[in-house]
Amino acid sequence: MSASITIALDAMGGDDAPDIVVHGAEIASQRYPNVRFLMFGREQEVMPLLEKTTRLKNVVDFIHTEDKVLSDDKPAVALRSGRKSSMRLAINAVQDGRADGVVSAGNTGALMAMSKFVLKTLPGVDRPAIASFFPTLRGESLMLDLGANLSCDADNLVDFAVMGNAFARCVLGVQEPSVGILNVGTEDVKGHEYLQVASSMLRKADLPGDFVGFVEGDDIGKGTVDVIVTDGFTGNVALKTAEGTAKLISEFFRQTFKSSILASLGYLLASSSLNKLKKRVDPRLYNGAIFLGLNGIAVKSHGGTDAIGFANAIGVAVDMRDQDIVTKIREDFDSLTREPINEQAGFE
Amino acid sequence: MSASITIALDAMGGDDAPDIVVHGAEIASQRYPNVRFLMFGREQEVMPLLEKTTRLKNVVDFIHTEDKVLSDDKPAVALRSGRKSSMRLAINAVQDGRADGVVSAGNTGALMAMSKFVLKTLPGVDRPAIASFFPTLRGESLMLDLGANLSCDADNLVDFAVMGNAFARCVLGVQEPSVGILNVGTEDVKGHEYLQVASSMLRKADLPGDFVGFVEGDDIGKGTVDVIVTDGFTGNVALKTAEGTAKLISEFFRQTFKSSILASLGYLLASSSLNKLKKRVDPRLYNGAIFLGLNGIAVKSHGGTDAIGFANAIGVAVDMRDQDIVTKIREDFDSLTREPINEQAGFE
Repeated sequence: MSASITIALDAMGGDDAPDIVVHGAEIASQRYPNVRFLMFGREQEVMPLLEKTTRLKNVVDFIHTEDKVLSDDKPAVALRSGRKSSMRLAINAVQDGRADGVVSAGNTGALMAMSKFVLKTLPGVDRPAIASFFPTLRGESLMLDLGANLSCDADNLVDFAVMGNAFARCVLGVQEPSVGILNVGTEDVKGHEYLQVASSMLRKADLPGDFVGFVEGDDIGKGTVDVIVTDGFTGNVALKTAEGTAKLISEFFRQTFKSSILASLGYLLASSSLNKLKKRVDPRLYNGAIFLGLNGIAVKSHGGTDAIGFANAIGVAVDMRDQDIVTKIREDFDSLTREPINEQAGFE
Repeated sequence: MSASITIALDAMGGDDAPDIVVHGAEIASQRYPNVRFLMFGREQEVMPLLEKTTRLKNVVDFIHTEDKVLSDDKPAVALRSGRKSSMRLAINAVQDGRADGVVSAGNTGALMAMSKFVLKTLPGVDRPAIASFFPTLRGESLMLDLGANLSCDADNLVDFAVMGNAFARCVLGVQEPSVGILNVGTEDVKGHEYLQVASSMLRKADLPGDFVGFVEGDDIGKGTVDVIVTDGFTGNVALKTAEGTAKLISEFFRQTFKSSILASLGYLLASSSLNKLKKRVDPRLYNGAIFLGLNGIAVKSHGGTDAIGFANAIGVAVDMRDQDIVTKIREDFDSLTREPINEQAGFE
């Protein structure tokens, strides 16, 4: 991390905006002294918060706008009528070079639609994807798409694999990432036909690292691969299922420690270690859904997060800028060998 | 539970067959004194095990066959060339009335293909589904399909809802089951179009209990509904993701209790309660994937289970027979109001 980085913030997005945005920026500003912010939102709501923070005075440029995207606005409506919204102006700042990336905790669909419209997709990318990383037995893995594209074809999955691979190399620091396609079995003949086609294409695509073929749902927690590629419907269900199960098991443990006096005493003795575990699986650590495939950096914070979670989402955008992920993905697409699967069939 | 019940067992299916089948039957026989078994398999492998058990002598009829379905046989191949396999003969016994249900820990695809071919689907059911129940914050829920049908249409999902609803009422004992369709959001406009069509059909279908519309992945662990309906691809991924995450979080706790002397002491104090938790989430408790929509009872045990798990799968088949689930599902399909969605559109 060296030169100054500017992140555009949508101050009005998120359940507890603008509070989490201002205080999230404050926390991020401690962590990343070289980061400046362009903050967009309603002056009457944001300024009183900003004025209370001494730290932000010299690193935030505030730009007033009355409009904001609502959490239940349809993406198409937000795109059409939200041209002066805080979200849109923050994205515009990336497009015209005033900012290096944008972070919003607002409406996901609107943020994706606007980002796609304003920043455009990279050459060779048909559809951008939403990615996120999560804890596994082996460390951290990345999964995409998590809901930007409910239905996908083989080409889309190949795109996602390229983008996820680049992200794992640059931002997660895995030099030779392993990549797998989420399926209902590991054998080549399993699952939908387009998954088999995508697998065959990826075997020939010669990406850095290792394409392992198909992985199953339980490989997500195992961390069998660094990057899991799937359609947005399945990815969204899988991610939320994992979150729900993690909460369920944690709740079972919580109830267990309350179930007897001995268990409560045991909890007390282990509490320091258990608190470390709590920190390790804190969802705020994994806050920040990454939009990949755009000609610019856009990160979506969870709408219900707090200032610490929002600061982490800012951190993801900073890391992406630091590692110049957009250029890396562009280069990887330039050098991608993509043989249409039908032509290959003719040679075999 | 009153009259005598006969369960046909495929002695040769499963990683540790025939051992788990014979000892599973032994355990089940203790729990269900009114259950008899028809056991199909290779005499030279099964008989020595049977002869060692005193309990089974009077309740098992053994039928020798040399053939067995292999775990990697393609379903179509097993169907064609496995006519004398232990799996097939066990299914035949249900069809010709010698048994009330069949349990196998063998090849899932072959078991479904053979069961469908031999037992046939119930009138009104286009495709049978694989269902399983699992622990939630509220108790137990049922999800289907888990892999029999990778792609589904709206009619299939309505079928699954009817079958799952009947199972929840009869076997799980929920008088007014709540049913939801797995999706990427709860609003009516979310997700694939066929999900919206299925939701609209189910709102009008007037099933017993409560159709709540769409649920998301995290609702699985919450137990938001008693029955979750989904296509086989998504269901398979969701179930395995939940299993993998449960293992991940449990492993995190295990590591935590080993991370310091105090934590180890805490574990010792809480160990009696933690062992109760271990029993509560024991995967063997939830062993037994249920084939619903067939004109007969068929239960698939996990291939890697042990004798206790196999006994639980037998228990599922016994419960289904006890509650006469096949008749219940048949009756529910007879009384189902199913308006084709296109015709409805004309009235609106």
